Amino acid sequence: MNFPIIALIGRYQDARLDEPLRAIAEMLSKTGRKIIIESATASNTNIYDYAIANIDTIGKTASLAIVTGGDGTVLGAARYLSPYGLPILGINHGRLGFIADISIDETYNALINVMDGFYTLEERLVIEGSICRDNKKMYSDFALNDIVIHRAGIGGMIEVKVDLNDIFMYTIRSDGLIVATPTGSTAYALASNGPIIHPKLNAIVLVPIAPQTLSNRPIVVPSCGSLTMTLLTVGRKEIEANVHFDMQTWSELQPGDRINIQKARHVAKFIHPNGYNFFSTLRRKLNWNVMPKSSDNIE
Amino acid sequence: MNFPIIALIGRYQDARLDEPLRAIAEMLSKTGRKIIIESATASNTNIYDYAIANIDTIGKTASLAIVTGGDGTVLGAARYLSPYGLPILGINHGRLGFIADISIDETYNALINVMDGFYTLEERLVIEGSICRDNKKMYSDFALNDIVIHRAGIGGMIEVKVDLNDIFMYTIRSDGLIVATPTGSTAYALASNGPIIHPKLNAIVLVPIAPQTLSNRPIVVPSCGSLTMTLLTVGRKEIEANVHFDMQTWSELQPGDRINIQKARHVAKFIHPNGYNFFSTLRRKLNWNVMPKSSDNIE
Amino acid sequence: MNFPIIALIGRYQDARLDEPLRAIAEMLSKTGRKIIIESATASNTNIYDYAIANIDTIGKTASLAIVTGGDGTVLGAARYLSPYGLPILGINHGRLGFIADISIDETYNALINVMDGFYTLEERLVIEGSICRDNKKMYSDFALNDIVIHRAGIGGMIEVKVDLNDIFMYTIRSDGLIVATPTGSTAYALASNGPIIHPKLNAIVLVPIAPQTLSNRPIVVPSCGSLTMTLLTVGRKEIEANVHFDMQTWSELQPGDRINIQKARHVAKFIHPNGYNFFSTLRRKLNWNVMPKSSDNIE
Amino acid sequence: MNFPIIALIGRYQDARLDEPLRAIAEMLSKTGRKIIIESATASNTNIYDYAIANIDTIGKTASLAIVTGGDGTVLGAARYLSPYGLPILGINHGRLGFIADISIDETYNALINVMDGFYTLEERLVIEGSICRDNKKMYSDFALNDIVIHRAGIGGMIEVKVDLNDIFMYTIRSDGLIVATPTGSTAYALASNGPIIHPKLNAIVLVPIAPQTLSNRPIVVPSCGSLTMTLLTVGRKEIEANVHFDMQTWSELQPGDRINIQKARHVAKFIHPNGYNFFSTLRRKLNWNVMPKSSDNIE
Repeated sequence: MNFPIIALIGRYQDARLDEPLRAIAEMLSKTGRKIIIESATASNTNIYDYAIANIDTIGKTASLAIVTGGDGTVLGAARYLSPYGLPILGINHGRLGFIADISIDETYNALINVMDGFYTLEERLVIEGSICRDNKKMYSDFALNDIVIHRAGIGGMIEVKVDLNDIFMYTIRSDGLIVATPTGSTAYALASNGPIIHPKLNAIVLVPIAPQTLSNRPIVVPSCGSLTMTLLTVGRKEIEANVHFDMQTWSELQPGDRINIQKARHVAKFIHPNGYNFFSTLRRKLNWNVMPKSSDNIE
Repeated sequence: MNFPIIALIGRYQDARLDEPLRAIAEMLSKTGRKIIIESATASNTNIYDYAIANIDTIGKTASLAIVTGGDGTVLGAARYLSPYGLPILGINHGRLGFIADISIDETYNALINVMDGFYTLEERLVIEGSICRDNKKMYSDFALNDIVIHRAGIGGMIEVKVDLNDIFMYTIRSDGLIVATPTGSTAYALASNGPIIHPKLNAIVLVPIAPQTLSNRPIVVPSCGSLTMTLLTVGRKEIEANVHFDMQTWSELQPGDRINIQKARHVAKFIHPNGYNFFSTLRRKLNWNVMPKSSDNIE
Repeated sequence: MNFPIIALIGRYQDARLDEPLRAIAEMLSKTGRKIIIESATASNTNIYDYAIANIDTIGKTASLAIVTGGDGTVLGAARYLSPYGLPILGINHGRLGFIADISIDETYNALINVMDGFYTLEERLVIEGSICRDNKKMYSDFALNDIVIHRAGIGGMIEVKVDLNDIFMYTIRSDGLIVATPTGSTAYALASNGPIIHPKLNAIVLVPIAPQTLSNRPIVVPSCGSLTMTLLTVGRKEIEANVHFDMQTWSELQPGDRINIQKARHVAKFIHPNGYNFFSTLRRKLNWNVMPKSSDNIE
Repeated sequence: MNFPIIALIGRYQDARLDEPLRAIAEMLSKTGRKIIIESATASNTNIYDYAIANIDTIGKTASLAIVTGGDGTVLGAARYLSPYGLPILGINHGRLGFIADISIDETYNALINVMDGFYTLEERLVIEGSICRDNKKMYSDFALNDIVIHRAGIGGMIEVKVDLNDIFMYTIRSDGLIVATPTGSTAYALASNGPIIHPKLNAIVLVPIAPQTLSNRPIVVPSCGSLTMTLLTVGRKEIEANVHFDMQTWSELQPGDRINIQKARHVAKFIHPNGYNFFSTLRRKLNWNVMPKSSDNIE
């Protein structure tokens, strides 16, 4: 049997998920699978008819996690669960997302097909960032989308030195610098003028945010390399900067701090119904299909 | 006599300005002009041989302010002094700037010429922003460069509604929104992909920072209009946003706050030696003269 | 009576316009107005029940031209008719355009209202470009959108020197250079990363196409100035370049040729039904209303 | 002995190369190596003291080609010689280039070192494009930089359908579309807002030129895939478009033509003196070192 133990996780504090989650749990339970409700989700939706477990236990015991919410919820769950190798299936409760690409209406059919083995398993690159101060590791976290160094709210531009495999790349003065995976290339990095990176490419993209030097451009590098960012001291100003992981967790930075970024040892695994297509998601999300038909307005 | 009373203002806490400021004061004093040293500058450089006055008194009494530092220092002085109609001459103590365009080496000749009446008086647009909460004005300030609404350091994107003359323009979700004068169009707005606006144009440019909707673009509008920005409530998140004036002063924003932006009643007046040329500054600052000669590398 | 003599002009070689044009002609004719069918439109649609006249005669005698097609058709008619001061009303027979903003379904009501005097007359800047070779004017034409210097299909980059009011601005090496009016700022210039210019602003924007120097940016200048572009000789290559006017007419360029561009003496006049709103057109055309609602996918 | 047979190739019709080429030939000849002068170079520089051979014979017999000129000359030689597996060393006779990165002054030392075995061999991706009409291959060529589909000089926008591995990616309406290798990512693609791709990455980037749909962005895809571009019929207009290979050779396109692009079976091999560093070239070419020092103009 595919996926004999299935965990259900819902968007944080979204009480509207009560009914859809119950329906999913009931349907999958009838197929003889064991259902686990993530503990915060249970208390939020009042679903207590199934086993309850926290996210760590889910990672250790479940064979699939079904996450209901938007891209943010799926991303958050995947950050915790992907180190355990657990595959994730995202159901979208709002506008279709890049990752959560099954709509609430399609849920039933999609799940039937996936349970019957008709699915695509997709692996996405995960990166890991460690903040080092005086050669001590202060903090470290994973990111599926991006690790972002950004000036704090009221500070001025920050200056960051970037090395790849201990070779000096460049020093940049800007609002910030985004280090994005292919998955993250369609998120914040895209809004900052970064390119779209095909998910099968073993690459990381560095995208500056409002760089002072106008010839600074996004740079795509192999994901097997090791990136080091160092926050420099700019002028007489007290520096205020933060590092964000998937815009979900963050840590403060001091001048001189280094952030080492490299590929994580694990990947994130996503389950899509057969027929999943990266470019069709892209066209839908970026309104590329709104393009005029050939016969229109060309004269 | 041109400019009979001249105020000298130096970069904040820059003790290296002692000698150059003394030289300027002595030279101008010999021409029979009255010299005033701005009080913070005096205590910073230990120049106490001339009259000392604070910035307000300078605004009320002086006929010219000579500001030594970089663009930031000149901008800061101009924000305070331009409401008094006082013209400003900027001397650059680092890399030549957009506004502080006289180098330390040229100072002597430049000042001689200006005192003899060989100068260009340039007027630059100033904008004024007022923050309104529940129909009460909470804060208001001037800007020569820009008024910037930006998410606070660790918050997510902000959503801002923009109206021009009470007509709805658009709602934007982004890291922030820059409202820049022509002067500011070569500062932060340029780093965020804004266009360069000729200083003689009566225009304001709105430049989004990392906008979520990819078709959002900078928009140039007449400076005689009245812009209103409203910070919307996004989702369930607590909003954290700030408004910055020339990146020098700032104020916190709450959801629902409105920022009204319009042309100030006064302009900022700058004195340039004859021969000043906006485009030559632009070419120098943006390295346009680094362009290959025609005979190079085209094959 | 408003607009006693009305000319009807249809998209070039679009036979489908037969019926809608007949309906418009009949309806307006009943109100006692005189109808003229533009001669090419007549032969294309076989409408011979009204007076027939060429575009020049229309310009001299009509009080309004109703143009049916897309933005391109309206633009083309406006280029010929605006020197006569004739106002134009555009009806769109495809996707709504920036200029032709009345849909075929709204035609009846819109025309009724306009005939009753409920309309907005909008004036748009027109620019004029003259190509000079050895101090002789070789060609000159008007543009409502843009005058574009572009390398010919198989040549390499071109190098163009730009002066504003006889003051050197910069030399640019690129695929081409777009000089756009506010109207043109939402056309080709926008695709080349130019800003949107509010139609009420007396400005022209220079937008480079694929510039070699990465710090080259769009520049917005006052429309009262006089721009001169000179095609330089690049290396040993034979230059092949063209100048396009609204992408509708064009002329070949030789190295050394100058293109002088300035505001035309006339403006283009457009009639909109009351309630016309530049920003609402913009939001519709650029899909800004596709933006997610606040409650969506922010977590 | 490293590189026993060395071919010398000079920039097309550049007679100034006479002296430097003679010096290189003499120096290498003294080390006992056999020198071949490429036939067009010989007739151009009047160097007839060594063996003369055409480019094909050079490809078959030489062990190294030294190419003197700019990036364009080296690129042109590499396009012909890389199928033979011949490594190339580029000496720059103008501004330093991305590929021809040895200056004329460094030539002697660089060559001594390379002959002694102190060099880096770098392999760069080559792509191959075939134009198919009615299922017949009409033309095919290699490119080290890029394969570019572009509207012909006076036509309007073109519409191109793009498939990757026979899966539909998108349809784009634009001036053109650049398909660039990592080497080409710092050439024309960069001018059209493409990202910089690290040369070690097995990737190809698609960069649209002035796309009508503003959300169109550069896309980076794995180089192992097979791209198909199809020129569509747009409206009633006669299409005029071309395909360019490295902007050096080109072919006309008709609507319906397909261009198949994939990785070539061979790579291009370049010899650099030890110490070659991609990022240092990048910083120099893009003026990143012109950045202000930390102590400057931040206040």
